[in-house]
Amino acid sequence: MARKISDSTVRRLSAYLRILENLDRDGETTVFSERLAQIAATTAAQVRKDLSLFGSFGKRGLGYSVSQLAVELREILGLHRRWRLLLAGAGRIGAALFEYSNLLQRGFEIVAVVDTDPAKIGTNWRDLTIQPASDLEALTRSEKIDFLVVAVPADSAQGVVDQAVRAGVQGILNFAPARLHVPDAVELKNVNIVMELEALSFALSRRKESEEG
Amino acid sequence: MARKISDSTVRRLSAYLRILENLDRDGETTVFSERLAQIAATTAAQVRKDLSLFGSFGKRGLGYSVSQLAVELREILGLHRRWRLLLAGAGRIGAALFEYSNLLQRGFEIVAVVDTDPAKIGTNWRDLTIQPASDLEALTRSEKIDFLVVAVPADSAQGVVDQAVRAGVQGILNFAPARLHVPDAVELKNVNIVMELEALSFALSRRKESEEG
Repeated sequence: MARKISDSTVRRLSAYLRILENLDRDGETTVFSERLAQIAATTAAQVRKDLSLFGSFGKRGLGYSVSQLAVELREILGLHRRWRLLLAGAGRIGAALFEYSNLLQRGFEIVAVVDTDPAKIGTNWRDLTIQPASDLEALTRSEKIDFLVVAVPADSAQGVVDQAVRAGVQGILNFAPARLHVPDAVELKNVNIVMELEALSFALSRRKESEEG
Repeated sequence: MARKISDSTVRRLSAYLRILENLDRDGETTVFSERLAQIAATTAAQVRKDLSLFGSFGKRGLGYSVSQLAVELREILGLHRRWRLLLAGAGRIGAALFEYSNLLQRGFEIVAVVDTDPAKIGTNWRDLTIQPASDLEALTRSEKIDFLVVAVPADSAQGVVDQAVRAGVQGILNFAPARLHVPDAVELKNVNIVMELEALSFALSRRKESEEG
């Protein structure tokens, strides 16, 4: 399993899984790579290449079994496991994420929430009591946290991450508009809404200039 | 202005801007590319290369003026303009985004919100009244919308996008876990939280397997 799989391949695998789940819900049992490719906005050759990295699925001329390929993709993506998440930050983004029912369904369980706000600490989100942020390191250990979700302000983000990394966290999903430094052994993914908007702004602005100019 | 600038360059420009704003807040007036690079987790050569794409800033040996470079970067990123956003979907993600005060500060103004839920239509978010989703196309035109923000369920996302595109929207920020099809002339950015988590799951799962195997 040493082969390096690119980020964009992993993203397409996620997309295929989502499509298969929709097809399954619509009662479809078989799908061809052409159809998958069309819905996923890619090519059939790309679909076959992506899947071939992980084994041999489907039969030539018969397509893929929708339910079986979904099971395989869930396994490839590690979604047959249960992942334990600690959420740092009980603000709006934290709350939106906590309420996001799809997470648990996909095996991502938020098992602890921390915040620095004394008004929030001790209150409950469903059956979880919000804990003080100062307990983050201890909680990461005692709750055997796999992923940290960073939903704190930008200037607190690195401190939160450093504590979780010391306590052995292996993956981080960062919502704070900050560039975080983590050891190579820790996987970091950023969800940066402002950056995405700025990329849109940049693209449209250049377009306007070339129209105007 | 026809030169193609890569996505990753644009992301670094956003990061530099964020850093400069923090330095400015801390009262620093000058910064060297080495320092910018260190905070942005890149190299000084990369910083200089990124900036040189857009002109000549700073003086050799004297570094960059923090406030002046921030102004230049804002202009490069199109943040000196005011962008008009329509938010489709007044659920939790929509609400979190609407409350996100940084947006307006950066020139992104949500000027219309639509939803399909009769219980939400007609209620107010600050001084905006939530409009019926069926008015999306008309609103996009009358409000001269630049960007559409998609915060509706996955199976409604493409329909919403098609309407906005027909009405001339130029950029789309998509939060729905769906692959959207848009014409080449429309800029599309996706914020897909489940996909980021699945990428973490994939990476950690492979690591666990190689430890176990």
